[in-house]
Amino acid sequence: MGAYIAVDVGGTQIRVAVFPQEGIEPLRQKKILTFHKNDAPELRIIDLIAELWPANEKVLGIGVAAPGPLDPKAGVIVMAPNIPAWTNLPLRELIHQRFGAPVTLGNDANLAAVGEWKFGAGRGHENLIYLTISTGIGGGVICDGRLLLGQSGFAAELGHVTLLPDGPLCSCGQPGHLEAISSGTGIANFVTAELAKGVPSSLAPDPYPSARDITLAAQKGDALAMAALNRAGKYLGLGLANFLQIFNPSIIILGGGVSQSGDLLLKPMKASLNERVMGPEYLTNLTITLAQLGDMAGLLGALALAREL
Amino acid sequence: MGAYIAVDVGGTQIRVAVFPQEGIEPLRQKKILTFHKNDAPELRIIDLIAELWPANEKVLGIGVAAPGPLDPKAGVIVMAPNIPAWTNLPLRELIHQRFGAPVTLGNDANLAAVGEWKFGAGRGHENLIYLTISTGIGGGVICDGRLLLGQSGFAAELGHVTLLPDGPLCSCGQPGHLEAISSGTGIANFVTAELAKGVPSSLAPDPYPSARDITLAAQKGDALAMAALNRAGKYLGLGLANFLQIFNPSIIILGGGVSQSGDLLLKPMKASLNERVMGPEYLTNLTITLAQLGDMAGLLGALALAREL
Repeated sequence: MGAYIAVDVGGTQIRVAVFPQEGIEPLRQKKILTFHKNDAPELRIIDLIAELWPANEKVLGIGVAAPGPLDPKAGVIVMAPNIPAWTNLPLRELIHQRFGAPVTLGNDANLAAVGEWKFGAGRGHENLIYLTISTGIGGGVICDGRLLLGQSGFAAELGHVTLLPDGPLCSCGQPGHLEAISSGTGIANFVTAELAKGVPSSLAPDPYPSARDITLAAQKGDALAMAALNRAGKYLGLGLANFLQIFNPSIIILGGGVSQSGDLLLKPMKASLNERVMGPEYLTNLTITLAQLGDMAGLLGALALAREL
Repeated sequence: MGAYIAVDVGGTQIRVAVFPQEGIEPLRQKKILTFHKNDAPELRIIDLIAELWPANEKVLGIGVAAPGPLDPKAGVIVMAPNIPAWTNLPLRELIHQRFGAPVTLGNDANLAAVGEWKFGAGRGHENLIYLTISTGIGGGVICDGRLLLGQSGFAAELGHVTLLPDGPLCSCGQPGHLEAISSGTGIANFVTAELAKGVPSSLAPDPYPSARDITLAAQKGDALAMAALNRAGKYLGLGLANFLQIFNPSIIILGGGVSQSGDLLLKPMKASLNERVMGPEYLTNLTITLAQLGDMAGLLGALALAREL
């Protein structure tokens, strides 16, 4: 029997799992911190793969989900905002040289889309949009049964579309991106600014509440917190209307912590989507749903890619 | 020898051309008005195909470019803004029943993208964005060597992405779409509104100047006309930055009358694109160029599709 290894690299954790030739139950898996002492994260990945390497099965492929922008064709991480030392890092080649097995590398949000498509909420769809809404907003798109990559694999940066040309600054430095408005960071920045203006709120004791604090306050009826989620949902719906007209998908899957905020976010999102979409034909046969795989999505997408090696 | 027939249907003209089995020089072609007396446009199309039907060659396929939204998989025109009687019109079946040959139907902007890709400015590219800027703004996208359609063929409505949520109304009824700002109509509406405010301009004698008049005035140095093209170019560049991050193409092709406005439009467009793009990696190996096929693009795209039947 053969085995596959999937790796999910984040700014906080590295996760490695060994999978059997079929199925999505890991044979074994382990998480470690991305940063520890002075170890380079790429060496920590390699050590963890070695630690979990199966004794009795041949490893048929290794799939790696990593933060981007990265070039999946070249196997190179161009830049990783959360891992500053990674600039033009040939991660695929580093792993391949160490272990010999074929290695494939993909953007984490793209691979989470693949995971949900193959094993989660998107099964059976050929035209799919996946949006992960947490600290930032990442995207992955399946067009006609294939992952959208573009010439160098930098496509589907769905958090980085401009909705307010003079709006708040995004983590990427540009103004008014969807991410700057509707991500956890965008929500928190909005509340912080309103608190600084003196808007009354149960959140006032902490001038920098987190998106999670804000959701909890909104669920208890705090007006400012509710307004913040309403605003995030409204622009999310506007962004989704644009994506419908660009991609005409049959399913939109929402993942990431902020997507768990419930109707306080999703109701204004759907209202805005319905108001802003160009025509009812884009809503025909359209499913909008939450992701099913949680934080396993990227790892399982990496597995799916490895199985295609 | 076999032959192919290509049809391009617009709000003003219907064009039919007969092509040989290879090459893009038509054997014969003819244009007629879309509307004449009380003839239904679909019957005028069928009559023109019959008139040009080759006597000695077998017709291997018929490709039709038509206004949309249309469903290329079902062969049905959902709605044609310029041909009001066309609602859920099964145009593919009507033509197929009359002539027996296989028929394929595509959105005109999508097929213009295919035309430029196969025979024009986009040859050799696998990831291509085509934008036609005239009365409206239409789009077509090639992703990894295939035309982007979405689940029902309604994808790539690139003129209908929101750049100014509270901006001017678009032809589709939604506020602030790229088309509402940077199309010929958007440019003309901006100038009309400025003239109504009393802004001085050589265009003032006509309260409703056309985009063409405005371009001519801008070329002569009229400040309002120059500002109008500058504004259109600025938002066009912002839209293109979004499209780069969404599709990561290797080429952007600009077609349509307004794209011929020269540097008065293209310089602010490029400046805005460079300012607004998220990272230099999106500009690597990127060509931005004008379309080469003029008003033959849709017809040649229809030919390309027919040859794949």
